[in-house]
Formats: sequence, structure tokens, C-alpha cells
Amino acid sequence: MNPLAGGLMELMTWVEVREAAGAGLPVVLPMGSTEQHGPHLPLNTDCVIPVGIALETAKRLSLVVAPPVRFGARSRPLSGGGESFPGTLSLRATTLMLTLQEVLEALARAGFERICVLNWHYENAAYLWEPCDLAVAKHPELRILVMEDPMPRFSEAELAELFPRGFPGWDVEHASIMETSLMEVLAPDSVRRELVADDEAARHPSWDVVPAPAEFIPKSGVLWHPTEASREIGQRFLEGCSKRLEEVLCSEFGLTAAPAS
Amino acid sequence: MNPLAGGLMELMTWVEVREAAGAGLPVVLPMGSTEQHGPHLPLNTDCVIPVGIALETAKRLSLVVAPPVRFGARSRPLSGGGESFPGTLSLRATTLMLTLQEVLEALARAGFERICVLNWHYENAAYLWEPCDLAVAKHPELRILVMEDPMPRFSEAELAELFPRGFPGWDVEHASIMETSLMEVLAPDSVRRELVADDEAARHPSWDVVPAPAEFIPKSGVLWHPTEASREIGQRFLEGCSKRLEEVLCSEFGLTAAPAS
Amino acid sequence: MNPLAGGLMELMTWVEVREAAGAGLPVVLPMGSTEQHGPHLPLNTDCVIPVGIALETAKRLSLVVAPPVRFGARSRPLSGGGESFPGTLSLRATTLMLTLQEVLEALARAGFERICVLNWHYENAAYLWEPCDLAVAKHPELRILVMEDPMPRFSEAELAELFPRGFPGWDVEHASIMETSLMEVLAPDSVRRELVADDEAARHPSWDVVPAPAEFIPKSGVLWHPTEASREIGQRFLEGCSKRLEEVLCSEFGLTAAPAS
Amino acid sequence: MNPLAGGLMELMTWVEVREAAGAGLPVVLPMGSTEQHGPHLPLNTDCVIPVGIALETAKRLSLVVAPPVRFGARSRPLSGGGESFPGTLSLRATTLMLTLQEVLEALARAGFERICVLNWHYENAAYLWEPCDLAVAKHPELRILVMEDPMPRFSEAELAELFPRGFPGWDVEHASIMETSLMEVLAPDSVRRELVADDEAARHPSWDVVPAPAEFIPKSGVLWHPTEASREIGQRFLEGCSKRLEEVLCSEFGLTAAPAS
Amino acid sequence: MNPLAGGLMELMTWVEVREAAGAGLPVVLPMGSTEQHGPHLPLNTDCVIPVGIALETAKRLSLVVAPPVRFGARSRPLSGGGESFPGTLSLRATTLMLTLQEVLEALARAGFERICVLNWHYENAAYLWEPCDLAVAKHPELRILVMEDPMPRFSEAELAELFPRGFPGWDVEHASIMETSLMEVLAPDSVRRELVADDEAARHPSWDVVPAPAEFIPKSGVLWHPTEASREIGQRFLEGCSKRLEEVLCSEFGLTAAPAS
Amino acid sequence: MNPLAGGLMELMTWVEVREAAGAGLPVVLPMGSTEQHGPHLPLNTDCVIPVGIALETAKRLSLVVAPPVRFGARSRPLSGGGESFPGTLSLRATTLMLTLQEVLEALARAGFERICVLNWHYENAAYLWEPCDLAVAKHPELRILVMEDPMPRFSEAELAELFPRGFPGWDVEHASIMETSLMEVLAPDSVRRELVADDEAARHPSWDVVPAPAEFIPKSGVLWHPTEASREIGQRFLEGCSKRLEEVLCSEFGLTAAPAS
Repeated sequence: MNPLAGGLMELMTWVEVREAAGAGLPVVLPMGSTEQHGPHLPLNTDCVIPVGIALETAKRLSLVVAPPVRFGARSRPLSGGGESFPGTLSLRATTLMLTLQEVLEALARAGFERICVLNWHYENAAYLWEPCDLAVAKHPELRILVMEDPMPRFSEAELAELFPRGFPGWDVEHASIMETSLMEVLAPDSVRRELVADDEAARHPSWDVVPAPAEFIPKSGVLWHPTEASREIGQRFLEGCSKRLEEVLCSEFGLTAAPAS
Repeated sequence: MNPLAGGLMELMTWVEVREAAGAGLPVVLPMGSTEQHGPHLPLNTDCVIPVGIALETAKRLSLVVAPPVRFGARSRPLSGGGESFPGTLSLRATTLMLTLQEVLEALARAGFERICVLNWHYENAAYLWEPCDLAVAKHPELRILVMEDPMPRFSEAELAELFPRGFPGWDVEHASIMETSLMEVLAPDSVRRELVADDEAARHPSWDVVPAPAEFIPKSGVLWHPTEASREIGQRFLEGCSKRLEEVLCSEFGLTAAPAS
Repeated sequence: MNPLAGGLMELMTWVEVREAAGAGLPVVLPMGSTEQHGPHLPLNTDCVIPVGIALETAKRLSLVVAPPVRFGARSRPLSGGGESFPGTLSLRATTLMLTLQEVLEALARAGFERICVLNWHYENAAYLWEPCDLAVAKHPELRILVMEDPMPRFSEAELAELFPRGFPGWDVEHASIMETSLMEVLAPDSVRRELVADDEAARHPSWDVVPAPAEFIPKSGVLWHPTEASREIGQRFLEGCSKRLEEVLCSEFGLTAAPAS
Repeated sequence: MNPLAGGLMELMTWVEVREAAGAGLPVVLPMGSTEQHGPHLPLNTDCVIPVGIALETAKRLSLVVAPPVRFGARSRPLSGGGESFPGTLSLRATTLMLTLQEVLEALARAGFERICVLNWHYENAAYLWEPCDLAVAKHPELRILVMEDPMPRFSEAELAELFPRGFPGWDVEHASIMETSLMEVLAPDSVRRELVADDEAARHPSWDVVPAPAEFIPKSGVLWHPTEASREIGQRFLEGCSKRLEEVLCSEFGLTAAPAS
Repeated sequence: MNPLAGGLMELMTWVEVREAAGAGLPVVLPMGSTEQHGPHLPLNTDCVIPVGIALETAKRLSLVVAPPVRFGARSRPLSGGGESFPGTLSLRATTLMLTLQEVLEALARAGFERICVLNWHYENAAYLWEPCDLAVAKHPELRILVMEDPMPRFSEAELAELFPRGFPGWDVEHASIMETSLMEVLAPDSVRRELVADDEAARHPSWDVVPAPAEFIPKSGVLWHPTEASREIGQRFLEGCSKRLEEVLCSEFGLTAAPAS
Repeated sequence: MNPLAGGLMELMTWVEVREAAGAGLPVVLPMGSTEQHGPHLPLNTDCVIPVGIALETAKRLSLVVAPPVRFGARSRPLSGGGESFPGTLSLRATTLMLTLQEVLEALARAGFERICVLNWHYENAAYLWEPCDLAVAKHPELRILVMEDPMPRFSEAELAELFPRGFPGWDVEHASIMETSLMEVLAPDSVRRELVADDEAARHPSWDVVPAPAEFIPKSGVLWHPTEASREIGQRFLEGCSKRLEEVLCSEFGLTAAPAS
């Protein structure tokens, strides 16, 4: 593979893609969004992070990172602030599912047989499995790994280290500790540090209401406490997530980790 | 309301529905499936249970139970055994979402303004919010409560009572302890007691693989231990779930619980 | 087959379905609706009747009755009163056709090869054939019997017996003599006898107008004279319809009638 | 209106259409097909006939005849021979319904408020009402007359005259007595007289089977006895159908018949 | 082939179509529209012309002319005046693409293997290729020639002859010199000569704006100078276009031109 | 606007987007692809170039560059080599049109009223106008500039400078002189200079054939002569295209060019 590409398919040429597919490399397809992430993180946060995780894994395991799907499912108030924030650009569920299916089929036509759909945008999770099921029906040679949730199962001790002031639950981890920390590692220039501020919804129940009551939506779009974020925490998350991706890829695709060529 | 109907809309006449909507009653729309539930439970298990919960709540709170959506999203091997079991009759995600949206709009046309979508089939959860969002865009007078997960948050002590031999996680609760117990209460004649047997998948990871490896699918379609089920446990689940439904309805719709008329 | 099931697939387990399909039994899929049927009949009338007919036939011929499709095509004023009656919950034509096709394909995957689509809701009739055509294109092993109109061809003498005060034409038979009579047999508790009253549209032409003029819609939703209904007439209709279903199944599927096991 | 046009919209200019719409003229939209009609009639038979009827009515009542929809719903063996005959070019139901809805909306944008959908191809009948319903939802000023069946209700005496050797039922009237007779009047040059021959399906039940058994399909595509056709019978049919169209238009649109300008 | 048909499929019988397909004849499918063409040309101009060209070619090369697709893609202001002109009846892009794909598949089922999609309505050009691609995926025996632009590449000298007062660019050739000239040859009775008048948009840029500014739309719907049209010019265009069609058909389908039978 | 963002919306925060929309800035939406561009250019070439042009214009005119649509319409052999090249990841036309419409509507919800759709991938051009038309129907406050072809109209003299060895026509400008030159300016590290080689299809007619004959597809995916490319030519193209974009934006949106803030 041309060293220019570094595993990012969008930087590769078709000849390099042919070579990678011919060598039996797995491809990781990150599922992101273009969505508000508070006043301190850019709209592409949900793309930067899964691409970053996959590239981190690619240091130890030869793989190709497909162009991320950059428009995601509609943002929901309780998990992403919702569609009322300017700059959130989302797709209807049907359009997203078609996009995923068509990209999977194109990857199959390119010769890839082992695909990992690596999701980061929570609202996408719902819509991944069926397009995979439909793509496999057309391309029975495919084996698709669906990682709706990219987080490792942390132990209580690990959680205590990652969230020193207490683990609030993953459901409010939007533009908060984890994502801000990861962006500090992966795209530090894009973090507006002077604008980092904690926030939370006045109410955050375990059910949803449509249309969303105002108290479900934090004014800033931040669902919890990004002031607790740090580069160190980000580094641990990156290691945890990329290590898990590596292990799952090895386990499901029968691979052995080795430095990427 | 005509006492014959007992709150089940499909048994009501249009005049009774008009009366109920005119009185401002909320309507609960159960989202079920037609899906294998092991050798001991019938295919309609995912319909019987949420209807049963809603009717239990209806004893204390005036409400109407809409006809359940009886064909659900495609069964996934890790949560329902998958589409390979005879008798599992599922819809494509797009068809399910259209069905839900159209039923919601018809309920709005009937004059209902407060609708609770009460899901029981795990695979449906993904597809509920967007149809609600689209229905509200057409009928801004609607307020829809989306209960993707109908389970209360049990305390450790409660879990210990419900699962005396240990709580295995909700993800394997298909045709297992909870569902079998609930069916013992709600439809005891339909439980084939002589066929109750424990089972589990050889492997049950926190990600998915398509096509599903054989070891993800337990032979019997049972994901855990229905032999631990009992009518007593079922009664507690029914009370817990119907109590929670009551509380959420009261909280979100500004109601006060009272015996159903 | 487990005697609990009595041929109703939704009460069967997957093991029983597998057994039935393996034995080559035909499956009858009733096409119903959730639609106003006047002030005296419940919304599920169009489901109760075809299921009742199929179960009656099942006494003489081994067959499985699939879960009825309970949301039908949009109600039209001249044949069902129309969508303006509260409680009528209908699907768009496209959604209904997708539902039918997907259920047919799931039945095929379950191993059934002989399916009878038994319609009762008039407005569905239009939308049955093409989904069958498409399902057969995918599953060439299927042989589907499409009964858009479940009525036998009665002789003049029979019509005189069934409609002693004169046969008004099938087109006004909605919530009227035939349906009320059948419900008296199949679900007598759900008939509000004290509310049975005749009605008819001020005008009922052989063409249609959209939007429907007020004079096309009888106030009560009753299109003719349910006061002429009786349990005896209902019994004759049930026998006539189930006998015809039996004959057609035998003729098209090469079966010989025998008591259901 | 420019005398060149003679009421056929496709021959009119946009200025003439504007004039006609401005004058409040009704528009008749013929629904046809491109379908086999035996060895003696052309594929456009189902377009020629309803256009001919509408133009005949236009002699007495000012109206515009919209361009017919020339691709119809899939041909069914029992009513049109089916899709296996070369030259039958049909649309999927969904495509046909979209086409109709979009044409209706375009007619509304042109300023027409009274539209008559005049069907001739039997298989279309199913798919007319819902597109009309949807078009009216967008254009509430529309009033659409849906003539799924363009036939008058003939008396016994009239039927005896039209079918001297006995009335076989309308269901076999495809490429048979009525259509051949009408084509003798409307497009006599396109009738291959030397090829007129009677035929019929070996079996023609009141239900359908998919895939169609061979005995449902007459070899020639003729469903009955075109040898009994004649120009005289065609003339009577033309008069009967155009007279009925005139009466219905007058009745539903509040018009008074008068010679077309 | 029956001499009555003259190569127009809609006038042929199914037996003649079978014969033509069996003889390996190519079929030309004209893609037209129903669209305003100024105050002097009829709405069917975009159908008359490509059918006329194909029939002209058919004099020298045996071929079948399929029924033209008569509803085209939405008219755009800069190329056809736009949807605001009464009488323009267009389809959504999705509906048009489905129509084309279904007609192509029906032609394949009829036995044709060589199809030429001959477009005349500019706005259709966008939507032709993908339906052809999809049809070929289902019918690999097909070879489809896609002529999005039916114009020959004229030399400067030829352009000078055809446009004596200067060639304005093809983009304003709507209801202008070329189309009016061709209609003078193909349908002279439908040209309202007394209404021929030049016009042009106040602004006609090489980009588009939505919604269209008023200055993009010429009042009359004429985009340039039909007063320069003549029967002689029309004859030359007809010869040029039909000659090119002949050459391309011969080249791509390996045919040799010969008088049509 | 935060200087970090530099006008690229995906790097902006929602607060910055709100500010930009509130200030009335126009937004440019680049339409790209993920498509083979020979052995020397990366798959994201069609995204890099229009983003680069828009950013160049942004130096003189305050505007926001929306996240490019990175999956384009299916590649056609004659304009992009076709879908058979590994790494070309394309969408169905319907999916692409939905994506564009949904992104436009999200931009409208964000408060932008002036949007320029700037296309670079030739095959997209077909599918831009209708989604714009549909978006405007829902958001009448929008004014959308559709630049299907981003090229200026060069004079003969300019063409001679840009293509010293002769202008081959824009239709073969894929991975050739213009694109390679522009990439030398915009993303020089991604040009594999050692692999630049000329190529061309054995045949490149002005019509298309499906399935594509082998001689339509150059082996390398290069349609012409990238060896003639240079950084200088790229600079001129960039200036020409960005200058034109500036002029059209100023003209259609009533802006005055000024350095971006």
C-alpha cells in the first residue's frame, strides 16, 4: 500500500484499493454525523473520533479505513441535543439505511469480504443491522461485524479513573468528558478551550417525549461536564477503544495483530 | 365507555372511540411482534405482554389500548433468535416505520392528542422515534411518549428477588425467566409447561456479526433459563411494569391515577 | 399440532409451525382492517369474520390460520364510511402491499408452500394480487390462492333466504345484515344489540367522488339494515363461506377435506 | 378553444389549456394500458376506447381530454392474459399510483378543478382512488370523479341486444365482443378482421391463483367470442358509455350538456 | 410484420410483436414529454418529433418504435419554461426512472435484446442511464443504446445553413427554430402559424436558480426565434437526426441499413 | 467567525454556524464523489477540488463551505471509468437526491437562506435540480444557485494556454490535465507523480451503451493526458473557477466581494 494513504481509503488510489482488497485486508467503515457538539467542539466530532480509533488500530493491524458516513441519523434531544441546533445536518432513517447498504455493496464489489461497521453517533445505532443484513443477502461472501457501541466494557476501577468525579452514565456523554478528551488527542486545534463549560438537561428521563419538552435540551448542547476532560483521559479512551476494535477484529475475522505495513 | 370494551380499542365501536378521544383519554399503542419464543411460548408473546401491562395500568388510570402492531422488526439472532425460526413473521424497517407513522396519524385524526408508544419487541426500539417525529410534524397537537424500553429500573435488591439464581442481563431475556413468568400470569393456557427448558447461545458478544455465526443462535430459540420462571415472578414484573407505565403517563401527560371508569 | 393452538398460528410455537409446514399444511392468511362498523359492532369486525371462517373450515381440513393483517387499506366512504370515523386505522396502499409481501415471504421461509390470502375488507381487494405476484417471483415454490371476494355465488333462492326483505347488493353490506349476523355467531358478546339501527347513504352511486360528498356517508357508519340480521342468517353465511373456502382449497391445492387433527 | 385541438389536450397549446381551465371546463383523464388484445386488436386498444368515449361525450359537453395514461397496471391472466404476452408493457402498482397522482396535481396547477378519471383497463381500477385522495389532500379545490368502471348498467333487454348469443359476463370481455365492436367504430383500420377468432380460458374461476395455472390463459389472448362483434354493437356501446359519462359529469359537476364549442 | 403497424408498436398486435422480437429487430423507445411549446406548438411536440425521427429511420432499417414515454421530467425554466405553464404535465424524477426501468424490463420479457432509448425532452436526459443500468442488471442479455442527445454533430457550415441568422446554442432550442421546423414536417396541421412569434428570456445564464427568477422565463414559453423556422429546415433536421440514428444503430447493434419490410 | 474554522462548516461549532447564518452569509455545498481517478490521484479528488475552489472564493467573499456530499452518483464509464474500479463508492440516484434534499432542508433550518450547490462530479449534475426544487417548495425563503458545471466559459485563447497540446473536450477531463493540475495545487502530497501516465478509451462516442463495451473503459481509469498537467495550469484553473463562483454568487445573491473576515 502506498505510504501516502496510511490506510485512509479516501486518500488511496483505486490501484491501492485493489491491492488492499486482494490482500484480504478488512475494511472499517466509520459511521459518524454532522452534529452540534456544544460551543467548544466542531460539527465533525462524530467523524473524527471513529476514524481516529480505526487509524490507531491500524497501527497494529493491517486494515483500510473507508470514507466515514458523515451525515447521520436525526439527532435526538436526549442524546445529541436534537435537530434544532444550527449546523446539525442529518438524514432520514430511510436515506441513511440506503446509504449504508449501497456503500457496503460497493465495498463488496471492490473485493472486500470482511467489513467492520464502526459506529460513533448514538442515533445511528438503530439503523445499522438491517442494511448489513440486506447487503449480505446480495453478497453472501461478506462477513460484516456490526459495532453499534464502540465502547469497551470498563471495570468499575477503570471507570473511576476515567471519571474521577463520578461516572454519569454513557447516555449523557455527548460533547462531554469522553468526547472532549478524545478530541484533545485527535484534533486538539479544533477544541475551543475557552468555551468549554458544563451543562446538563433539566430533565433526562429513561423514556422520550416528542416533541421534546424544553427541559430535555441543555441550552449549550453539552449534556454533561466537559470541564473534567483532559488529554490523558482522551489517550486512555483512545487506547481502550482501539484495543477493543483490534481484539474484536482479530476474534471475528481470524486475524493476528501485527504492525500495519 | 362501553364496559364491553374494557379499554381495548379493537373491541370498541367508533362511537366509543369518539367518546374516549373527546374525554381527553391517552392512548397506549403496544408495539409487538410475531416471533418465535422457544418451544414453550406462543408466537404472539410480544403482543400479549405489552397489552397485558397496559390493561393492568388501565385499572388505575383511564386510557385506551390501541390495537398492537403485531408484525415487528426483523428478529436478530442475539436478541430473538433471528429470522430462521419458522413462524417468525417480520417487516422490513421501512415498512414498520411507515406502519407506525400511519397508525399514529390515524389516532390523531380520531382526536387523540396524548399517545404512548409502548414497545416490547427489542428489535422495534430502533424504529420508533422517527415515525413519532414525523407524525408530530404533521399533527403538532400531538404529544407522544416513546417507551422503547418498558422495564422499570430495578434496584439490586429487586433484581435479586426477581432472579434468585442471578441476573443474567436483559439482553438474554427472550423466552426466558421474565417473559415466561409474565405469560404464566397473562396467558397461562398458552404456556407449554412440559416443554420449558433452559438454553443459551454458545457465544453472546456485545457486538453483532452478519450473517450470524451458528454459535450465536441457541437451538431452541430460548436465550436463557425459563425453568426459573414462576407465576409469582410474573406478577411482580406485571406490577413493576404497569406501575412504571402509570407513573410515566401521569408525569408526562399531567394525569392523576384513578380507577378506570 | 399442539391442541392448544387450534390452528391459529399466533397461538402456536415455532416448533409447531415447523411441524405444520413440514406436514405440507396450507396456511390461510386473513386480510382484515381496523375500521368503524357502526355503533353496534367493534372495530375488529373485519378480522374476526375471516378468522372465524378459516377456523370453521379448519374443522374439516387441516390448515393453519396465519395472524390476520389487522390494518387494512384506507376506508372509502361508499364501502366503509371512510377515514373520518374515529377508530378507523388504515394504511397507505404502498405500506399495505409491502406488509403483505413481507408476510408472504416469511411464510415461505417458514416452509409453507400453499398459501390462501383470504380477504374480508373490501378496500384491500385491490392490493392483494401484486404482492402475491412479487412474492412468487422470489419464491417460485409458492402457490398462492387469492380470494379477493370471500363470498360464495348464492343462487336467487339462497339470497331470498338470507335477505328476506330483499337483497340490496353486496356493496352496502358494511355493518349491515351479513356482517352483523356473522358477528352474532362469531363474537356475540361484542354486538351492542341495543344500538343496532338501520341507516343508509343519501346517495350511493356506482362511481366515486373525491372528496366524498356528505350525502355519500351515512351518519352512523351503517350502510344498510342490520336490524334484519340474525344468528340464523349468520350461521348460514358462516357455513356458506367456510364451505366455499374448503372447496377452493381442495380444488386448487389438491386436498381432500377431512377433520382437522 | 382552437378548433385544431378538438378537446384533446395533447394537441392543444398551453395558451389553449389556460383558456379551457379558465373557462371552468372539466377534464377527463383516460386510464389505459399497453396490453395484448388478441391477434386482431392493437396494443393501444385500452387507450383508443376511453379517449373515443370521452371525445364522443365532448360533442355534447365542453370538456378537455387529458393525455391518457398509456402504461397501466400489470395485466392479470384472468382479465387480460397476463404479462407473458409480448408487447404488454405495464407498470408496478406503486409507479402507476405515483404517475396518476402527479398528473392530477399538474392538472390542478394548470387551473382545472373538476377532473374525471375514466378507466378502461380493468387492472387499473384498484389503484385509482388513493392517488385521487392524496391529490385532493394537496389541492383541496379539486373535485375528482372516479369512474373505475365505465360501463352503464344495462337492462336485461339491452344486454340481450348487445350479446345476442348470450351475455358471458364482463369479466371475459377482453379482446372480445365489446372491445372488438368498439374498435370497429373507433379505429376500424387497426382491426385485423382475418384474424378474429373466438377463444376462452379452459378455466375461469371467481378467485385467482399465482402463479397462474396454464389453463387460466387462453392461447390467443382472447377471453371470449370476438366473432360476435360488429360495428353496430360498437356504436351502441359507444353511445351507452358516452351518454353515461355525460350524465355523470353533469350530475357531479353541476353541468348542463350542450354541443362542444 | 403486419403492414398496418408500420413499425409503431402501439398499433401492433402481440403476435406481430412476438414476430418482430423473434426476428431480432431493435426497438427504439422515444422519451418525450407533455410540455408547453409556446402558443404555436402543441403539448405533444416532444413525442411527435422523436417518434417521427425513428419512423424516418425505420424506412431504411427494420425496427420497432415502442410507445413513447409521454410524461417527462419536470420542465425547467431555462430549458422548457418550467412547470408554471398550464398543460405541462410532468413526473417526479423517481417516477420517471421507475417508468423507464419497468418499460425496459417489459421489452426484455417480450424478447427484444437491442433497445435504443431515444430522448428528445432535455430534462429527461439526466434520468435515462441509471434505469438502463438497473434493467441490464436484471436482464444481462440486453444491450441498450442511450441517446440522451439526439442531435448530430453539425459542422459549422451545416449550422450556418440551418440557422441563417446565427446559431443561438441548443439550450434555447425549445419551441424555437428547430422544433417548429420539425413540426412543420411531421405534424404541420398542429402548428398555429398565425401565433408564431419570437421571444427570449431576459436572462439565460449557464447556471440555474431555484426558485426561478421571473427574468428566466419568457412570457410566451418560446425560448428563441421560431419565425426563422421553415419546412425546409425541418426536413434537413429530420434527415440529419434520422441518419444519425441509423448510423448509431448500425454501429452499436451490428446492423446493415436496408429498406424496412 | 472563529478563525479556526476558516469557513469550513464541518470544523465550526454550532454557535459559529448560528452566527454565520444570522449574518446572512451564503453557504456553498460542494457535490463530490468517492471515485477512481487513475493510478495517480486519490479517491477523494472530486471532493478536494470543489472545496478548494469554494475556500479560494471565501478569501474574497464571506461564505460558509458546507460539508461536501462525498458519495456521488454512479460513475459512468465514459465520464469516470464506471463502477467496476475498486474504491468507487457511489449511491443510487434516488439516495443521492434524498441526501441532497435533506441536507438543503437542514441548512434552511439552520437559518441559511442563500445556498449554492457547487458540483464537481459530472454524474451528479443530473440529480441536483429536482432536490433543490423540492427543498424550495418546503422552504420558500430559500434561494438556491445550482452550478451543475463549475467551469468558466474560457475563450479560445485561454483554452490554448490551459491545453497547450490542444483542448480535447471537457468530457474526457477525468483524472486528466485539469484535475491533475488542480490537485497539484490543492493537495500536492496526494498526487502520485511517478504513476502519472496518459491513457484514453479506445472509443468515446457522444452516446452511451449499457452494459459498457470494454473499449469505452481505459484500463488505467485515466480518460486523457495527465502528463500535460502542471501546477501552473492548476493555479489558473483554480483562479478561473473561484473567480467565476465569486461573480455568480455576487450576481445572484446581490453580494459585493470583500475579503473574508
